[in-house]
Amino acid sequence: MAIQGKNYIGYSLSAQNQRIFQSYVPITDSFLPEKFHAATLQEVEKTMELAEKASGEYALVPASKRADFLIAITEEILALGDELLERATLETGLPIARLQGERARTINQLTQFADLLREGSWVDATIDTALPDRTPVPKPDIRKMLVPIGPVIVFGSSNFPFAYSVAGVDSGPALAAGNPLIVKAHAAHPGVSDLTAQAVVKAAQRTGMPEGVFSMLYDDGFEVGTALVKHPAAKAVGFTGSFKGGMALYKLAQEREEPISVFAEMGSVNPIVILPEYLKSHAAEFGKTLAGSVSLGAGQFCTNPGLVFVTETEGLDLFEASYQTEILNTASSTMLTAGICKNYYKLRDHAFAQDNVTQLAVSENISAGENQAQPSIGRVSGKDFIANPKLHEEVFGPFSLLIVCKDTAELLEAVSQLKGQLTSSLMAVENEVGSYPAIVQHLGKISGRFIMNGVPTGVEVCPSMHHGGPFPATADARFTSVGRHSILRFVRPRAYQGWPDSLLPDALKNANPLNILRLVNNETTARPI
Amino acid sequence: MAIQGKNYIGYSLSAQNQRIFQSYVPITDSFLPEKFHAATLQEVEKTMELAEKASGEYALVPASKRADFLIAITEEILALGDELLERATLETGLPIARLQGERARTINQLTQFADLLREGSWVDATIDTALPDRTPVPKPDIRKMLVPIGPVIVFGSSNFPFAYSVAGVDSGPALAAGNPLIVKAHAAHPGVSDLTAQAVVKAAQRTGMPEGVFSMLYDDGFEVGTALVKHPAAKAVGFTGSFKGGMALYKLAQEREEPISVFAEMGSVNPIVILPEYLKSHAAEFGKTLAGSVSLGAGQFCTNPGLVFVTETEGLDLFEASYQTEILNTASSTMLTAGICKNYYKLRDHAFAQDNVTQLAVSENISAGENQAQPSIGRVSGKDFIANPKLHEEVFGPFSLLIVCKDTAELLEAVSQLKGQLTSSLMAVENEVGSYPAIVQHLGKISGRFIMNGVPTGVEVCPSMHHGGPFPATADARFTSVGRHSILRFVRPRAYQGWPDSLLPDALKNANPLNILRLVNNETTARPI
Repeated sequence: MAIQGKNYIGYSLSAQNQRIFQSYVPITDSFLPEKFHAATLQEVEKTMELAEKASGEYALVPASKRADFLIAITEEILALGDELLERATLETGLPIARLQGERARTINQLTQFADLLREGSWVDATIDTALPDRTPVPKPDIRKMLVPIGPVIVFGSSNFPFAYSVAGVDSGPALAAGNPLIVKAHAAHPGVSDLTAQAVVKAAQRTGMPEGVFSMLYDDGFEVGTALVKHPAAKAVGFTGSFKGGMALYKLAQEREEPISVFAEMGSVNPIVILPEYLKSHAAEFGKTLAGSVSLGAGQFCTNPGLVFVTETEGLDLFEASYQTEILNTASSTMLTAGICKNYYKLRDHAFAQDNVTQLAVSENISAGENQAQPSIGRVSGKDFIANPKLHEEVFGPFSLLIVCKDTAELLEAVSQLKGQLTSSLMAVENEVGSYPAIVQHLGKISGRFIMNGVPTGVEVCPSMHHGGPFPATADARFTSVGRHSILRFVRPRAYQGWPDSLLPDALKNANPLNILRLVNNETTARPI
Repeated sequence: MAIQGKNYIGYSLSAQNQRIFQSYVPITDSFLPEKFHAATLQEVEKTMELAEKASGEYALVPASKRADFLIAITEEILALGDELLERATLETGLPIARLQGERARTINQLTQFADLLREGSWVDATIDTALPDRTPVPKPDIRKMLVPIGPVIVFGSSNFPFAYSVAGVDSGPALAAGNPLIVKAHAAHPGVSDLTAQAVVKAAQRTGMPEGVFSMLYDDGFEVGTALVKHPAAKAVGFTGSFKGGMALYKLAQEREEPISVFAEMGSVNPIVILPEYLKSHAAEFGKTLAGSVSLGAGQFCTNPGLVFVTETEGLDLFEASYQTEILNTASSTMLTAGICKNYYKLRDHAFAQDNVTQLAVSENISAGENQAQPSIGRVSGKDFIANPKLHEEVFGPFSLLIVCKDTAELLEAVSQLKGQLTSSLMAVENEVGSYPAIVQHLGKISGRFIMNGVPTGVEVCPSMHHGGPFPATADARFTSVGRHSILRFVRPRAYQGWPDSLLPDALKNANPLNILRLVNNETTARPI
């Protein structure tokens, strides 16, 4: 299958623009030959017109057919075979094994949404039947369910070329919910995006979806993304990336005549707090585990543990020694782009340059190739951390700062500086947790996922996952981007009052033809009415 | 019980400010003697400090205790007896019977939240148990539930002194969810607010709630509301009122360092579309029903039907005659404030002054007293309506515009001009609905509650109610302000990964001690694990 380099606008290819760019290969610091055409504003307009038109039609496609569409996407992605993986490793510098895992996760995400659609209860059908004889006024029949909102704009992210990109965690639920999807491909992996777009288009065509249900546009600048977010037909935005990028989109969306939601995941330092008894009993072992989490995937995960808090208690020396040794020996790895790599060293060195920050370890195990990130860890006292907000910021890459507090009172003060996070981890022996209620409470308050005795990297795709968190980790703490509940970002409730059974959507009909769980007169049941 | 006129800051009264105001009595155009002290910025600060402090403690109060608190509020409100109703009728001009009904609704709303808390399944507990032997990596135990977000600011609304005020549709779910509540009392009914605040404070004290769980501040200007919304401890805002007011708060909230949600209900014209067969068969009867809905409560409902669309088909003359006669005979009623009354006539006359708008009827039945609103209806052609966006705007009060379209094609075009609405109504004989798919689709798309053969006034308080709608009807179409799901505005999910059973919240424990419905490994069940 050949990479086209053109914009996928409905079922057509379009390349009006002379502004082109190429795929960058980070490990060789070179470019691949294919040319990708940035979309023009006319192409944006055409895309959104098609999406708007498809919106009404696609909303009426039964959920089971939308499930077929999602499964067809998984089939077409798998049919791309090794070509997709090979292109991805070239464009991202990520190893094939990681990409195989990420592809499997992406297939799994889409399959879970297909299952959700086929089961059907997710529409949250809520029914109160009429009481025509009630006094002083009769009670009408009211029935409510979740319905699609309209075209959704998704920005592919740099660090997950499959799982958070063209057919990833934002795209899957947007389509599952019944909304047309418009992807702004990430310029760091345009070839992967191009191949994936072909898979989605094929799947849409062979399952008979309306044209406009999917489009994908290129740009290596900001013009196309800006125009998409500002377009009146757009009803929500999904984004994973930097705080700066997320907030720029957020502000654009709020300044529209009709403000829309931006589900932006914007970075997190994912604090880990090690309590004294745990430190004493797990010092060497956890030093090693932590080093693995810090350096995993060149530290390019939003759940990378950027801050680790300990106290000057028994086991600290052993823990530090183990952590240090492991980081020194951990091989460098290729970062996604030259810009990301440059920024990593800039921010790391900025952290190292702060008052009283020492280098605990910088890996000496440098792999072959360009854009190599050396795993690096720093150390600072609790007091100096508290006094210097610059140290509270994320360094995107395999860097982490160890904050050594003189006692648990200082630990609490240090932890209290932290703002919203995707995750927090508490490393503790079960019976010491009760001794630190304020620390536990603050970590809970700031985090979307609160982990005990585990590192934050590794985001399980399952219903109970919450991948989100209070601002500034995300723009809206009420929603997750991973797991079934992520579909709630792209729907809204609609109530039907006084409608005859024959005209109601199937989910709300008396006979319950979809056999879903519903809340009927305050009882959760699948029984017909 | 005496009105205090002071700010209720936790369990203390405070009146630092010399800036005072009094209750206005619309029917006599006079003022009552009590003095209400606008809060100072220092009082705002003290209030938010207390709320922030109470936040952690109140979040840990078990749901059953929070239910006791809500029930205690209902008891204390009822204990205020006729004094509350009498004060309300003076301050709002609303008749006692309406206020009795509204008080009953308010009690009902709070009781439904107490019931929800006692049943407990609303926290949406979602559990995936560990698979320690899974390869390539073990699956961790993850459990998720909804948790409180922190202090919520609620603005009392002018038109519902009980149901959308101190202990109304925003306050009830904010407290039920486990968040401290700070009410900015509406200056149009400060005495009612004062008495209700006393009821809430008493209820909080006798059920042992932490100080700061409730505060209420006065202001007849914008300073206090602005300071509350901008305060870093505030985590969400509830508001019902004008588009201008709602958007001002929305912008303030978005410009904060940490943006927060504003659940603003901002007005709606609640279109009614009458299809030809229905018009033919229900002309006289519906003219009368419609007139009742337009003039109900001096038209001061957010669900007032401001635009009614018909076609030039059989029954139109009879319908118009019936509608006209009924409006001519409907008595005027007292509006809430002099400002609202003045604005009503200004906007009504502005509508009447538009090209080709005729007065269909202006009530000649004027009741005694000041600030009387005359029910008034206008008429315009579909063509002129389409051409003049000024006619698409809300006129707050007992006014409605009849849009007479020459055929159903023009009807579709006219309806397509409409933006987001709380409600739309379709008046139709069952077998004609299928002939107008585009009209039905557009009405569904723009509305939160889609009514068949009914008027929009009357918002049933039940789980299936959706009182909300696409922008500009509300700031966030995903949430309702009425019914159990309104609690979702004031919570967020938090996942717990790897926690031992003994340290988990009760809702997530293996034994399911709360006996709630949970999603456990993809199955909805109340069984223990």
